[in-house]
This record gives sequence, structure tokens and C-alpha cells, in this order.
Amino acid sequence: MEEHQHVRKGVMAAHDGMIAPPRKMFRKKKSVLPDLNVMVNGIVKGSVKELAKAITFIESNADDHYKYGQDLLQKLLPYTGNAIRIGITGVPGAGKSTFIESFGMRLCDAGHRVAVLTIDPSSSISGGSILGDKTRMEQLAKHPNAFIRPSPSGGTLGGVHRKTRETLALCEAAGFDVILIETVGVGQSEFIVRSMVDFFMLLALTGAGDELQGMKKGIMEMVDAVVVNKADGTNKSLAEKTKREYNQILHFLQPATKGWESKAYTCSALKNEGIDTIWTMMKEFRDVTEKSGVLIERRRYQTKEWLHTLIMEKLKNHFYRHPYVKEQIGQLEQDAMNGDIPPSQAAEQLFKQVYGTE
Amino acid sequence: MEEHQHVRKGVMAAHDGMIAPPRKMFRKKKSVLPDLNVMVNGIVKGSVKELAKAITFIESNADDHYKYGQDLLQKLLPYTGNAIRIGITGVPGAGKSTFIESFGMRLCDAGHRVAVLTIDPSSSISGGSILGDKTRMEQLAKHPNAFIRPSPSGGTLGGVHRKTRETLALCEAAGFDVILIETVGVGQSEFIVRSMVDFFMLLALTGAGDELQGMKKGIMEMVDAVVVNKADGTNKSLAEKTKREYNQILHFLQPATKGWESKAYTCSALKNEGIDTIWTMMKEFRDVTEKSGVLIERRRYQTKEWLHTLIMEKLKNHFYRHPYVKEQIGQLEQDAMNGDIPPSQAAEQLFKQVYGTE
Repeated sequence: MEEHQHVRKGVMAAHDGMIAPPRKMFRKKKSVLPDLNVMVNGIVKGSVKELAKAITFIESNADDHYKYGQDLLQKLLPYTGNAIRIGITGVPGAGKSTFIESFGMRLCDAGHRVAVLTIDPSSSISGGSILGDKTRMEQLAKHPNAFIRPSPSGGTLGGVHRKTRETLALCEAAGFDVILIETVGVGQSEFIVRSMVDFFMLLALTGAGDELQGMKKGIMEMVDAVVVNKADGTNKSLAEKTKREYNQILHFLQPATKGWESKAYTCSALKNEGIDTIWTMMKEFRDVTEKSGVLIERRRYQTKEWLHTLIMEKLKNHFYRHPYVKEQIGQLEQDAMNGDIPPSQAAEQLFKQVYGTE
Repeated sequence: MEEHQHVRKGVMAAHDGMIAPPRKMFRKKKSVLPDLNVMVNGIVKGSVKELAKAITFIESNADDHYKYGQDLLQKLLPYTGNAIRIGITGVPGAGKSTFIESFGMRLCDAGHRVAVLTIDPSSSISGGSILGDKTRMEQLAKHPNAFIRPSPSGGTLGGVHRKTRETLALCEAAGFDVILIETVGVGQSEFIVRSMVDFFMLLALTGAGDELQGMKKGIMEMVDAVVVNKADGTNKSLAEKTKREYNQILHFLQPATKGWESKAYTCSALKNEGIDTIWTMMKEFRDVTEKSGVLIERRRYQTKEWLHTLIMEKLKNHFYRHPYVKEQIGQLEQDAMNGDIPPSQAAEQLFKQVYGTE
């Protein structure tokens, strides 16, 4: 394929061979960075190889790599926005991997190009997912129309957030028209995923009551659909009952998306049953929200919120990493909690030291 | 009463007469501020007059008044924490004023001292509540054991938040053992009230479904009880049905307070029916959470969160009020929303200008 030849000819070649030079030696040299236009062209033509390389720059914590990734992103922005962005959450054991494999294969076979991203805040602590995504979705990983990228590891939650968002944009520029973002349901990952997708679904197990008890607050009010998985064999009638229970709850809640009634569905990812219905529903969601203008409004709002989230992240880092704050905050928290100092005075004391003003 | 004589003798006298001097003339003079120890003693002895005066300092935007209010708060902190703090929310028309009047009268008659505060973020725009709290709760306003203070007006939402929180502390220092904080349900007021009370209740009308549709997301998951009001006359059986509906929903949700099952109740504030049951339930809540340690943990957590909320408020103000940010933010938002610039670059550009670093 043409784009692969591009890669081989370009400066990327140095990294492809088994005897690539140690990266640190070259970190400061501009020459090691691939030509920007070559990369942009490669990605726009759909080269997975160059996409993967671009993502490593986006994910890199080295200054020059990060800067290069941002330049790339800037040039690729005009090619983004054409995919349907789908977020998938669910408790562990709900069968998210099996669902994504079944759903992804169905779409890839129909000619769609599907990118699968994961947000796993715990990977910022453990340094990586416990189970590799490619082992979890064996068939899909081999499909030429699929691209699977595990959660970025290392760094802060804010960093994981940024990297996944920017990876999504790169995937769109590379022509992937369906982006699936899976959340492992740890920490604030559902809220992060909801803030970057068009459509958000909960993959559920039978027995809504018990499951909801263990679920994070507010999840049910963020979902555009609940899909009760494992609706097969002896479990089928129970799944139908659970679907009714979820519909009952959804009926009481405000819809997550204006003009769209969130409903419950059943499927069996294992038996590939009900998958088509879900895709049809998602396409309908896209049509409805595109026509009403809700989709474009949501995306614009998400971008604006994202800008302010980034600003807040930066403000927090700037403040909480200040030596005086690091030294004093613990004691001041204790003093405030013990009722020895009003919190407003504690805040003022810190602020005065850092910014020279109250 | 002794504390009132204190007031008359003190420097406060200048403000009591009809011919008080214009305040601006004296704003910079320290002499106009009442003696701190006199004020502290007055409040600790339960003087409503001095409490009200102290609150005006807490609410003042003048630097020396604010500073004086903070000094007062610092000295009064050891006397705070002894009240049960109850938050009350509900859609307009649910009968919050009638409920507070009925509930408050019941407690005042039994010897409790009840302070009623209101959080109305719209008062920061309109400059005051549309309807005075004292006209809304005519009987209670006259009761010697009651103290009613409307929402602080003017200033930012953050300001309203701080003022109400500090007013709560002053009321506790003055010996009020029941603090009722009412939210008018505008903006983020429910979340603000939830963050400063022990017990949070939703006052509801009959017809749970319709009402919940119009309610803010996440409210149901914050409440320790739902009280269906207006359970009288022909409305009684419908209220019972609504109670069952709310119980059904509450059953599906995570409890707002660890170790406490949030349930629905009915009452008629107008007919004074069911009010005792609600107070008994609240006392049980207090007993249970005191014994389990959940109450003290909640309060410590609330104080810690409050410190960080104050810090974030200050950080935001410091950044967003910077001339460069004020000038550029609108255009950068537009550029980001239009896909002309990655949000991360927009954030960096602003940050570099304000703090000289990315």
C-alpha cells in the first residue's frame, strides 16, 4: 500500500528496524523527528503505521515530542470530526470486551473503520492495563479495518484525559469513522468519556437493582442507552425483565441528550444477537441529533469545556506544586478540619504566599 | 436582657439610632468597629442582635469589615458545630416556606432555637430575594426562638456560598441548635447546600414522574429523605402513591449517606400533619450517623472540600480576571470550537502570558 511505502522511505525507518538507535541519544536533535508533512499526508491517507507513531508523540512526556505532537494535531484538525464517537461503560464482568469485539467486527465487515480506545485511570498508577487490549479482542485486533489502542499509561489522570482526547482526533483524521471509547469504570473515567463522546451507553448485566446499587452516582443520567448483555440461553427472560426495570428507571430521569429518549435494549455479544439493532439505534441517534443541531452543539460545548478543564488543570498544578503550598497544605487542612482556623483564612494565607495577593 | 444592654453601651449604638452618621465617612476608621470581645461574648450568650450585626460584617465587601468578620469567626470557631444542619430543596410550589414555618414552629415551641438561612444564587444578580423571607414565614419570624436570614445578595455565587457557610457557623456559636438551609433550586444551589449540611431533604409534590423529569440531575442521589407535601384532603391518596413511587426510585439508587436508608414520607405542612414523624426521623439520622462516625467524617470532609473550593475560586478569579485572559479568552474559545486551534494550545498560550510558563 502506498502509505506504507511512504513510511519506509521516510525518516521513520530508523525506528522500524530491530537495531534502532537508543532514543535518548537523539532526543534533543530535531533531525530525529519525522517530517511533519510526510506524517500529515500519511495519516490523512489512512496509514495506521503513521497514526500509531503520531499517538506516541501525543503521549510522550518529552518536551520536543510533545511539541511535535501538538504541531501535528494542529495540522490535522481540519480532517477531524467525521466519526461517530461512542462511549461504553459497565461494571467489570459486563462483557465490554466481548461486546466491542462483536460490535466492532460487525462494523468492520460492513466496511467501517473502527478505532477502539480505552480510558483506564488506574494505568496511570500501575503503568499499564493489566490485560492487554489486543488479547482481550483477538479477532478484532487482526481485522484490517480496526485499530486498537490501549489506555495511555503513566502520568496524571488529566494527562490520560488529554492524550485520549487528542488520540481520538488523530484517529478521525486517519479516516476512522467509528470511535469506540471504553471506560473501565474506575475513578472519574465515565465522566471523562462522557465529555468526549456523542453517544454514551451502559453495558449492563441482568439484575438491575443490585447492579445499580454498586454504580457510581449520576451514571444513569448520562447514558443514551442501556444494553443488557448476555441475553442468551436460560438468561434470556431475566435479561428481558432487567431491560424493563432499566426502562422504568430511565423513564423517571432526565434524558442525557435533548430530544432523545434513552431506552434499554438486550443483546448477546457472545452469540452476536441484537447487535444490529443497537447499531441501527446509534445511527438513528446520529441522524436525529445532527438534524436538530444537538450534535454540533454538544461537540462545541465539549470543546469549550475541555479548554476550561485544561486551564483548571494547569492552575491546580501551578498552585499545588508550589513549594510553600506543598509544605503547608496538609497542616492547614488538619487545622481547618479540627476547627482551629476558618477555611477562608487558610486559603488566603496560601494564596498570599504564592501570588503575593489575597 | 443583659446582652442587649451590652449592645446599647457599646460602640454599636451609633448604628442603632435614626440619625446614624453616613457609614462611608467612617469606613476607614478602626474606631467604628465594635470591640471584638464584646461581640464574641454577646454572640456566645445568644444575642440575636449581635449575631445579626456579625453577619453583616461577614457579608460585607468592604475590606475592613470583611477582615473584622473573619477575626470574629476565628474567635467563635470553638463554639460551633453543635447544631443539626438540615438542607431543604424542592421545586417552586412544593411549599418550602409553609413546611419551614410549620416545622420551625413545632421545634421552637419545643424549646429548640431554629435558624433559617436561604441560598438563592439569583439574589447575586437581582440584588435580593423577590419575596422577603419574613413575609413568607410570618409566624416563625415572630417567634423568640427563631432567627431568619435571607440569602446574601450581590457578589458572585462563590461569595453567596462563603457567606452562607460562615453565617451557619455564627448561628451555631449563638446557640441555635437547628439550622435549616433552604435552596431555591436555581443554578448549583442544591449542590452548595448539600456540601454544608448533615441531612438533605427533598420536599416533593404529588406525581413523582413529572416532577423528576424537571429536576436537576443527581438530586435524587443526594437526598436523605423525600417528603411528599400537601398530603391532605382529596390529595392524600395521591400523596401516598407518590411516596411509593419515590421509595421505588430510592431503592435503585446508592444511599446519600453511608449506613442510612433514604426513604419517602408524606406530610401536610398546612395541616401540621406528619411533621413529628419527620423530626423523629431526623433525630434518628443524627443518632445513627453520630454513633457510626459518619457525621463527624462528613463534616471533616466538607470542611476540607470547602478549603479546596475556596482555593479553586481564588485561582479562577486570579486567572480569568487577568487583562490578557479577559481580552483573549472569547476569541480562543471560538477558535477552539471552530476547530482552528487545539484547546491544549489555547490553554498554553494563555498560561504563558499570565504565569510566564506553560
